[in-house]
Amino acid sequence: MEEILSAAYPFWGRLTGDERERLLKSCSMVTYGKGDQIHRSDMGCKGAILLLSGLLRVYILSDEGREVTLFRIHAGESCVLSASCLLDSIQFDVIIEAAEAARAAVIPVSVLHPIMDSNPYVGLYMYKQASERFSDVMWMMQQILFMGVDRRVAIFLWDEMVRRDQPVLRMTHDEIARNIGSAREVVTRVLKYLSEEGAVSLKRGRVEILDRERLQKYL
Amino acid sequence: MEEILSAAYPFWGRLTGDERERLLKSCSMVTYGKGDQIHRSDMGCKGAILLLSGLLRVYILSDEGREVTLFRIHAGESCVLSASCLLDSIQFDVIIEAAEAARAAVIPVSVLHPIMDSNPYVGLYMYKQASERFSDVMWMMQQILFMGVDRRVAIFLWDEMVRRDQPVLRMTHDEIARNIGSAREVVTRVLKYLSEEGAVSLKRGRVEILDRERLQKYL
Repeated sequence: MEEILSAAYPFWGRLTGDERERLLKSCSMVTYGKGDQIHRSDMGCKGAILLLSGLLRVYILSDEGREVTLFRIHAGESCVLSASCLLDSIQFDVIIEAAEAARAAVIPVSVLHPIMDSNPYVGLYMYKQASERFSDVMWMMQQILFMGVDRRVAIFLWDEMVRRDQPVLRMTHDEIARNIGSAREVVTRVLKYLSEEGAVSLKRGRVEILDRERLQKYL
Repeated sequence: MEEILSAAYPFWGRLTGDERERLLKSCSMVTYGKGDQIHRSDMGCKGAILLLSGLLRVYILSDEGREVTLFRIHAGESCVLSASCLLDSIQFDVIIEAAEAARAAVIPVSVLHPIMDSNPYVGLYMYKQASERFSDVMWMMQQILFMGVDRRVAIFLWDEMVRRDQPVLRMTHDEIARNIGSAREVVTRVLKYLSEEGAVSLKRGRVEILDRERLQKYL
């Protein structure tokens, strides 16, 4: 465990022996099933999450139940928004959900809090990570505000193909819509268009990329 | 000047005498006219801005020239996005413009950079401030994504009335649109509706709030 934490958290070298021991002792391995909610404003403040495998999705929810994905957390990345109670300047709520089955190392806030107070490098890391997600959100916001939905769908399909290293994406239109912050009907329309163009083929719950070059034209 | 900086920057007490002297010596008073651009990606990295009077507007720009206001900086507040070159994790560009004539104390990046490297409290402050703006942007994003434009216009008028402590707002529909991230035509339609309802009266380049209670219904 020490190896994992010291590689992931750049403040590790700035901790005292006692601080390290407390973090190691309190850190727990947690597994999540696909679709599990990991963090929500009414679930209390869990702690700092270090994702070891799987994929998490961070999103906001409107009063009417509309979801907009802000960013996703990949294996090897950490997430501090699940410890937002420690970050005074973070004044918004997000929901974190396992988009795929996932395994994570979680440091509880009760242990992190006093260490963050006494060691500025820990807070510096936490806020730096939050600022990195700020960049992700700005990118998403620019996409939503300024970019056509056809391009957002194409970019999403392309990124997923590259990430999974295979052309078949097992996802419903609704899941894709929630990932790009759009409506299901709109995504269905765009996918139908892309399939008529021969870029993808559609089956229930899956999208297959048939022609990379053709898809690339929409990026 | 020392009084101003020490009151505004919580890391002041954590600086060495030498660091304080370098900041004081390099800090300059700058004045901006209404509409002046203060920061833009191609203008280089100015430094940390502490606004002493006036109002700044921070916005993004689409390829087609559409503006979306992210947040505004009021007198007494600082802005670190104008020193984003020092913040590795900030990977997006914003434009900062004087929405009203303004006066600011600017600490140049050349002086801030080495101090930030050697003193973790300075970086902690910078990233903490950036995270606070993250909260502002999330609020704006939720407004744009989830809230009707009539409500956004009403909230904007209300906030301006409270801030200026007077019911007359000298602003064009276009300026209001850019502030709430909408289009001029849409704002004009909403204002016309609010004026028919008797909540506001419209004249060229100004909006007057006639009936607070009526306006409040739209908040």
